[in-house]
Amino acid sequence: MSHLRVAIGQLPVAVGDVQGNAERIGETMDWAEAHEVDVLVLPELVLTGYPVADLVLHREFVAEAEEAAGALAARAGATTTVLSTITRVPPRRSWDSVERHVAISAVVLNRGERRGVYDKVLLPTYGAFDEGRTMAPGGEPGAIWRIGDVVAGIAICEDLWSGDGPPEAQARGGAQILLAPNASPYHRSKRDGREQLASQVAWRNGIPLVYANFVGGQDDIVFDGSSLVVGADGELLYRAPAFTEHRAFVDVPLPPHRPVTGPLRTVHTVPIPDRPRTPLPPSAEPLDELVEVWQALQVGTRDFARRNGYEQAVLGLSGGIDAALTAMLAADVFGPTQVLGVAMPGPETPAQELADARAVAASLGIGFAVVPLEPLMASTEDALAAAMGEVERAAPDVLESGPRAARVRAGILAAVSDAHGHLMLATANKTELSIGAATLRSDAVGGFAPLRDCPKTLLYRLGEHPAVGHGRIPDRVLSKRTTAQQRLGVELPPYAELDTIVQRYVQYGDGVEDLVARGLDPDVVLDVLHRIDAAEPARRQSPPGVTISPRAFGTDRRMPITNDWRAKRRRDSARLGAEHPPLPLGPETAEEPDR
Amino acid sequence: MSHLRVAIGQLPVAVGDVQGNAERIGETMDWAEAHEVDVLVLPELVLTGYPVADLVLHREFVAEAEEAAGALAARAGATTTVLSTITRVPPRRSWDSVERHVAISAVVLNRGERRGVYDKVLLPTYGAFDEGRTMAPGGEPGAIWRIGDVVAGIAICEDLWSGDGPPEAQARGGAQILLAPNASPYHRSKRDGREQLASQVAWRNGIPLVYANFVGGQDDIVFDGSSLVVGADGELLYRAPAFTEHRAFVDVPLPPHRPVTGPLRTVHTVPIPDRPRTPLPPSAEPLDELVEVWQALQVGTRDFARRNGYEQAVLGLSGGIDAALTAMLAADVFGPTQVLGVAMPGPETPAQELADARAVAASLGIGFAVVPLEPLMASTEDALAAAMGEVERAAPDVLESGPRAARVRAGILAAVSDAHGHLMLATANKTELSIGAATLRSDAVGGFAPLRDCPKTLLYRLGEHPAVGHGRIPDRVLSKRTTAQQRLGVELPPYAELDTIVQRYVQYGDGVEDLVARGLDPDVVLDVLHRIDAAEPARRQSPPGVTISPRAFGTDRRMPITNDWRAKRRRDSARLGAEHPPLPLGPETAEEPDR
Repeated sequence: MSHLRVAIGQLPVAVGDVQGNAERIGETMDWAEAHEVDVLVLPELVLTGYPVADLVLHREFVAEAEEAAGALAARAGATTTVLSTITRVPPRRSWDSVERHVAISAVVLNRGERRGVYDKVLLPTYGAFDEGRTMAPGGEPGAIWRIGDVVAGIAICEDLWSGDGPPEAQARGGAQILLAPNASPYHRSKRDGREQLASQVAWRNGIPLVYANFVGGQDDIVFDGSSLVVGADGELLYRAPAFTEHRAFVDVPLPPHRPVTGPLRTVHTVPIPDRPRTPLPPSAEPLDELVEVWQALQVGTRDFARRNGYEQAVLGLSGGIDAALTAMLAADVFGPTQVLGVAMPGPETPAQELADARAVAASLGIGFAVVPLEPLMASTEDALAAAMGEVERAAPDVLESGPRAARVRAGILAAVSDAHGHLMLATANKTELSIGAATLRSDAVGGFAPLRDCPKTLLYRLGEHPAVGHGRIPDRVLSKRTTAQQRLGVELPPYAELDTIVQRYVQYGDGVEDLVARGLDPDVVLDVLHRIDAAEPARRQSPPGVTISPRAFGTDRRMPITNDWRAKRRRDSARLGAEHPPLPLGPETAEEPDR
Repeated sequence: MSHLRVAIGQLPVAVGDVQGNAERIGETMDWAEAHEVDVLVLPELVLTGYPVADLVLHREFVAEAEEAAGALAARAGATTTVLSTITRVPPRRSWDSVERHVAISAVVLNRGERRGVYDKVLLPTYGAFDEGRTMAPGGEPGAIWRIGDVVAGIAICEDLWSGDGPPEAQARGGAQILLAPNASPYHRSKRDGREQLASQVAWRNGIPLVYANFVGGQDDIVFDGSSLVVGADGELLYRAPAFTEHRAFVDVPLPPHRPVTGPLRTVHTVPIPDRPRTPLPPSAEPLDELVEVWQALQVGTRDFARRNGYEQAVLGLSGGIDAALTAMLAADVFGPTQVLGVAMPGPETPAQELADARAVAASLGIGFAVVPLEPLMASTEDALAAAMGEVERAAPDVLESGPRAARVRAGILAAVSDAHGHLMLATANKTELSIGAATLRSDAVGGFAPLRDCPKTLLYRLGEHPAVGHGRIPDRVLSKRTTAQQRLGVELPPYAELDTIVQRYVQYGDGVEDLVARGLDPDVVLDVLHRIDAAEPARRQSPPGVTISPRAFGTDRRMPITNDWRAKRRRDSARLGAEHPPLPLGPETAEEPDR
């Protein structure tokens, strides 16, 4: 025997649905069995979904997972299944004084039995990951597994990434192949990094690597699949397609036996049959970067909607790019007939904007309604004014309130959503969510904000891309480049500059001095950073969306709401000789401009 | 020398305000110097505030803290100051593959210099704590410090709690006293547990313990102070008052010298002067439990408002207990003249409810306004209907939408808040936030929800307490015990039973079977648990509030938004023979009852 038939089940993530997941896993096990697969590798926590967060603090949840794993063990045949799930372990402490009772494990199933268990050693606790919060770390990084006449190692996701972790211990101890369940979320350029890593792990240790990943959306994160098989020389043998459920088997060439010095557990001793090696299945081509982003947005939005029971969507349709892209996404996800775009022109909205909104709806084939804002605003004013005698005395000037139009618009969409169970989509983009502008415009109100991690400049690129927005978004919408200043009515740099500041500050932790050293104007930098900090309270209450960057607000970047660091900006201002001190601390009161 | 003069600076928490904190610390150092204090102990991360969350990923923040610590070192005199702050450390890995560059440290200052640094070893990563996310763990738990002729240990907060951690290593190594900076958030019954712990640490190791804690609110958490000095026999020598800034010094009797075997660093070698021992300062009496809760709510709300720039508050004032208590809290925090209660009676609101709301306002002396909902609702309906032709075609029945009244109410409060920069207080309580009812009633809309961690039954107890609500909340408001079912218009058990289910499920992780075994009706249990799970998406967007329990939503209990575990409830239902299956998955569409 010189190769092992290994299958990958690139299954959809479904946090909490243990029974549903178990059924899907069982079918995949049967399929593997039918194809004489030697070892089936499934994603990390495939039985519970990932991430489970504080669900593991519910004993009945852990019990349900253990019971389901037992049932799957009973179903196992000659194919060895590496089934990742949570398991109860003896209490363990590590980085603090609290005992953890549950581990992220890979349970090894064969011929009706659970033949052993590997507990994940390295528990990521950064960015979107919180495993250290609830999970007990595994204590046997070097464990290796006899599967017939092959010796295999098992490493779970983060275990692969340290350079001197479980894979290294297992290869030194005699492993000839590495089986790796993963839950690796998508972000832009992640696939390249992941393939490099997989290649390095295989090459460094001289053994092939089988890398199974989830597909699908879970709250703010989305898994792209793109599972891998890499040969012992680090060459890619197989790449599964992105963003789609998939299964495939690969006959993986094995390196020769090595002296076994690690702790060896026996899964079974039936020799691997010496079948002829089947040709490699065709690998999926990597997607174009922007097509990949679009698929991430689709899958993340689709799964949030579907799994929370929504079949229709409603959104505010202005004539701008944010709304147009949100509408196009909704049309792709829900089907055009299930989407309602509502234009809500105010008294000062140019007629052309309404025409553009109508053109977007027509081009996409979605439902379209116009609710002129003026009568509604006027009647609201009238009613408030009639009732205002008492409020007036207690709080004069209430009628001059600013963002009323934004709230009335959000109210109309909410009414539609309430009536029909539409998912209300917020059209906010990352740039405007960064600086608090989305809140002022009510763009951040809704049940889901698909574009919340997309900078404004990316939206234009998506709109123009031949395989994304080109031909679907009317040219007029793409070609009008409203500046941030025009759109938001406050003094702001062009979007390209704004996006640079936001990205350098949020993603790379650059400071005022770093940004000024890049040639940016100190006044502008200070103002934008102040706005980013000051928008935290509103941002905290904004809806979830799809993460496409390595540092999305809320998911990857968790900031204090109350942050007196804002006071520092005034001192920076003095030090850098900026002309205008940043805005005073306090609630935003700027007027909402009309769309 | 047989005693050491130790001071505690129980300072307010202020995350991010490094310069402001440094000024306050400097003054406290001067005060200690003037009182010939040998060692001054300050809370954990007193220089940066706690928790810093992902602020530490900003290099300029770390640099600012290091610079400020340097300036404070220069200011240090003969008093040794144990100053806790973040410090940059050589990259360290521990539980995953990512290097951490920053530690939670105690910098030891004396006579113009930084004489050494201790890095916190145990990093809590559970409940409200996320230290493992960004912080590097210290690697020298046994480090001890020569301060004149005394040998001291330093342990930071979680370091105390393991039973075999830094205090034990330091005492074995020769420490005669333990100096402990802390950031220990309040929750009910926490103080007793903390005093027991402090007593055990001192008694077990045979050395006195000086325990300095923060005071004040930071987002969802509130620190109660209640700093401590415990003698070597475990007896309480001193307890600082709760919920107020405070400083005090205590001449602490020391145990005899022990053989020094641990790694010893020298802070200074000037012998501690042999002054006569001053009497112990008077300890603060522990507060009554409910008074303590009320102070926590006041301080948490006050600091959120003050530090986010709010000087006034507005809230919806019904005739119910939630609104009455929120109004009383606001009156205490902002002053009655700075609070506006707005009654918004709908067509079916009983006249007595409006009278009760008016009585609450009068009793508290807050501003009061009545905005009858009917004309506003009608004009909204009219305007929508006039404009509805197109929406109608695309989405019939929109006019029969349910929670419109709730949204109109929220809109009125938001308009007032916008106009004057009032903080809009949400009146939601924990019980109703648990089951999603607060959302339906719009009680969960606002900038801050002070009562969000208070169960309904606790609100009645607070209202009746002689030192809290009695005499301030009108008797009629306290005596009408509307049931959850009456109030929310859906079939629900009495509040007491509801609170039991919520607490057992959320705080203790009890499952369906556990609750049924307590004699609760399976139908009721399944329905309530289903509601708790299904309310997660709405709860995620609700405003922050004051944590008073060991497991507050969002802060201590972090759940997936999309959680297909809800599907399990239907199987539970079948298994337990419940009569009604739980609600179907999907958006809530229940009607909002009038208040």
